[in-house]
Amino acid sequence: MTKTNPGNFFEDFTVGQVIEHATPRTVTEGDRALYQALYPTRFAVPSSVEFAASVGLKPAPVEDLVAFHIAFGKTVPDVSLNAVANLGYAECRFHRPVVPGDTLSTRSEVIGLKQNSNGKSGVVYVRSTATNQRGEIALEWARWVMVHKRDIDAPAREALVPDLATVVAADDLVIPDGLDFTDYDLVAAGEPHRFDDYAVGEKIDHVDGVTLTDPEHMMATRLWQNTAKVHFNTEARPDGRRLVYGGHVISMARALSFNGLANAQLIAAINAGAHTSPAFAGDTVYAWSEVLDTAETTAPGAGALRLRLVATKGRDESMTLRGEDGKYLPHVLLDLDYWVLVPR
Amino acid sequence: MTKTNPGNFFEDFTVGQVIEHATPRTVTEGDRALYQALYPTRFAVPSSVEFAASVGLKPAPVEDLVAFHIAFGKTVPDVSLNAVANLGYAECRFHRPVVPGDTLSTRSEVIGLKQNSNGKSGVVYVRSTATNQRGEIALEWARWVMVHKRDIDAPAREALVPDLATVVAADDLVIPDGLDFTDYDLVAAGEPHRFDDYAVGEKIDHVDGVTLTDPEHMMATRLWQNTAKVHFNTEARPDGRRLVYGGHVISMARALSFNGLANAQLIAAINAGAHTSPAFAGDTVYAWSEVLDTAETTAPGAGALRLRLVATKGRDESMTLRGEDGKYLPHVLLDLDYWVLVPR
Amino acid sequence: MTKTNPGNFFEDFTVGQVIEHATPRTVTEGDRALYQALYPTRFAVPSSVEFAASVGLKPAPVEDLVAFHIAFGKTVPDVSLNAVANLGYAECRFHRPVVPGDTLSTRSEVIGLKQNSNGKSGVVYVRSTATNQRGEIALEWARWVMVHKRDIDAPAREALVPDLATVVAADDLVIPDGLDFTDYDLVAAGEPHRFDDYAVGEKIDHVDGVTLTDPEHMMATRLWQNTAKVHFNTEARPDGRRLVYGGHVISMARALSFNGLANAQLIAAINAGAHTSPAFAGDTVYAWSEVLDTAETTAPGAGALRLRLVATKGRDESMTLRGEDGKYLPHVLLDLDYWVLVPR
Repeated sequence: MTKTNPGNFFEDFTVGQVIEHATPRTVTEGDRALYQALYPTRFAVPSSVEFAASVGLKPAPVEDLVAFHIAFGKTVPDVSLNAVANLGYAECRFHRPVVPGDTLSTRSEVIGLKQNSNGKSGVVYVRSTATNQRGEIALEWARWVMVHKRDIDAPAREALVPDLATVVAADDLVIPDGLDFTDYDLVAAGEPHRFDDYAVGEKIDHVDGVTLTDPEHMMATRLWQNTAKVHFNTEARPDGRRLVYGGHVISMARALSFNGLANAQLIAAINAGAHTSPAFAGDTVYAWSEVLDTAETTAPGAGALRLRLVATKGRDESMTLRGEDGKYLPHVLLDLDYWVLVPR
Repeated sequence: MTKTNPGNFFEDFTVGQVIEHATPRTVTEGDRALYQALYPTRFAVPSSVEFAASVGLKPAPVEDLVAFHIAFGKTVPDVSLNAVANLGYAECRFHRPVVPGDTLSTRSEVIGLKQNSNGKSGVVYVRSTATNQRGEIALEWARWVMVHKRDIDAPAREALVPDLATVVAADDLVIPDGLDFTDYDLVAAGEPHRFDDYAVGEKIDHVDGVTLTDPEHMMATRLWQNTAKVHFNTEARPDGRRLVYGGHVISMARALSFNGLANAQLIAAINAGAHTSPAFAGDTVYAWSEVLDTAETTAPGAGALRLRLVATKGRDESMTLRGEDGKYLPHVLLDLDYWVLVPR
Repeated sequence: MTKTNPGNFFEDFTVGQVIEHATPRTVTEGDRALYQALYPTRFAVPSSVEFAASVGLKPAPVEDLVAFHIAFGKTVPDVSLNAVANLGYAECRFHRPVVPGDTLSTRSEVIGLKQNSNGKSGVVYVRSTATNQRGEIALEWARWVMVHKRDIDAPAREALVPDLATVVAADDLVIPDGLDFTDYDLVAAGEPHRFDDYAVGEKIDHVDGVTLTDPEHMMATRLWQNTAKVHFNTEARPDGRRLVYGGHVISMARALSFNGLANAQLIAAINAGAHTSPAFAGDTVYAWSEVLDTAETTAPGAGALRLRLVATKGRDESMTLRGEDGKYLPHVLLDLDYWVLVPR
């Protein structure tokens, strides 16, 4: 029994500690197909090798979120197996598209620790980096998570809360090598809206909804080798329900956002993300977006949009994020702040 | 909200109009595997690269219906998002097998329009063509669909109902380049029945049944990037059920037909198809076939069978299609008329 | 109706009979991805082409059980379509890893027959061999299954019960060409436990559980082209439930065993297997292992562990296999005896 992984508890982490996560994972065309089966995605770059090549991406990358989920999933057994809650993301940047044949490994460094005042748990801050088989960075991100203490009486160490950017600066976005939207085919991509057609403050109701099922979210979560028990085991929660992996909601909302944001081809960065309510099988997920900012980029023909992507349980045509008390409304599942690259 | 696609309404179509559909889609080995996971198919050509090569098909094609579903799915956002009902198919011909790496795009031309007498909707006739990355035709078909009008008071235009063949003539069947059934291995394929063993009028009860589930039909339908809301969203229908995509029933019945038609390796054409009753999760789908016609072909060792493929809810050993009133019996889900290529 | 396969009944088998099973099946990267989606596997060899290459396996094999399920599935239509029960396996040896692009075919020889005293059924013993497209053996195994008689009055033939080894001798294990664990990366693989860390008699509770669903086990079983009706059709059993394919439970338990046996990279042999209780959707599967034996191997840096892998419905921290009456406890689903290769 001592051979199994009990996961790390709050007092097992030290600032500066580096964790090399198991298991390296090779991305394949099977991942692309399963992603298409699980999410209603129609973005042209990951859908078509011909379209991808036409914008300078050859071989054709998989969805950016495939890379994110795989890279993130590796951290779960070491970082969040004993988590109370995932509190947030920051400074997530995609450095290069991931293509079939790439093998991703993830390494994390503990960059902050803060015990909670109740003494039962604490917040662990890690910066994680996923690299490919050539040692190149595929993506990196910071994340903080509330983790149980093993021993409530273990003394609290000095708190260190890292200084994390609330937004990745536009100048820090990494443009994929060779990306060129000069000859971008709007008809093939499905919508005519270019960079200049989006205005800061504009909201888009993505209209469509998908009702969640247990087999689908379990298949997705397993595909990323994410081992958090609550997603798979009806005996792991008092209510006997399987909690949907937050990343499943992100991918569902991102795919739904095609309807109105079909040209938001590539995710360049995730500035922040909050899973504000749990999602379960039977919930019908809808999405809306808000344009938060725009920026120039160095890629020919490409601009950057900073978007808020909101997933809701049930459609909210009013696109309201918070109540009068300033808190997220209960039907809001996800509030994601991210940068995408679009044709000008 | 104006950025999202409301779909076309009846009065948005004009005869002669050409629609280039989004999104190009590259077929992969992942599609082959998912098709095998979703349908109980065992046809030797799409199952084995060795078998496919032995009949002159190299690289190995995916199931013909993979190509059909992908090509068809692209037309949904433009043609049938506001459909009341899919009324029929005709003149569907498969021009060449689709192999992993092929990227399919679909274009449709409006070939007929006829407003309904109630003034609320009309029938739109389109001819659609799917081409690969080399511009070669992969398949083509005609389809007509009843579409809502946006404005009931919009005036009716002159009706034009195209003249569509009830059956693709045997001489018009396209034989894949290189196809040669001379050295066809009946043992590997699973059954000894050759072209001459099938007689016009013969019926085959395929015996086996599969009970449908929601996650499976949703995964299939998404894989083809078909966006019709009723398949995914329990809030889209008053009964809270998800309607199973008709193509899912086609593929299920086709796979079940292996038991008795194991050598019906390739679909050459679809003459007609009617989805006569809706299918839902929990329904157990069975299939039977009737041999409608036979024909010579130019391919060495290959003949063509024209078959009726009927999917039923529950097994019907009597293989009865219609009641005494001439109407489809209520347990009939699908009546598909198609041509297959079999060894002589 | 005579064209469909009724399956073989007991009196259709004769000792020495050889059956070439349909359908050859090419393994693809899609199979790898679906296996990852359906089971919580994280073994480094099938997960990473880089890791596989680092231990001498290039191209990267799929999970050994992918090959087992595909090879086994081919025998179902000919051997066990009319089975009352699968009684056991023996002498299963994996001869070489299966890689994407390999096409597997299976041939079986009847090696024993014994009619039951009730005259209604009998036990059929077959030895099956799966070969790849080069005619090389991929794996072989013996299996015995109780099969209905078509005609209860058919006379009993002389009984022949083959002599099957209860355990594959360590010297008979086949080591994959090129396998070399000398530079095995324990960190990437996920656990530090080497061959010498496991002691005969040691038991490992793998802790994690997965709740089964119908769509997932059907997708898995179809992927292996296994056609046994009880897995797919709610009308095939009086209770209206779909029986989970025993191989699904094997794969689930094997994947769960990663937690404590992460370095048990390759299955070399299966000595015996008993599906002791049926599994259904809603059951939560857990696993525990017992080390039964250890052995040297000829592969550099590799040892062999003989393990008992037990799947249970609900977690059994006591890891008890049988009751005081010597019978399997009712919550035990699977008792599998197999050899794995691990780094020294």
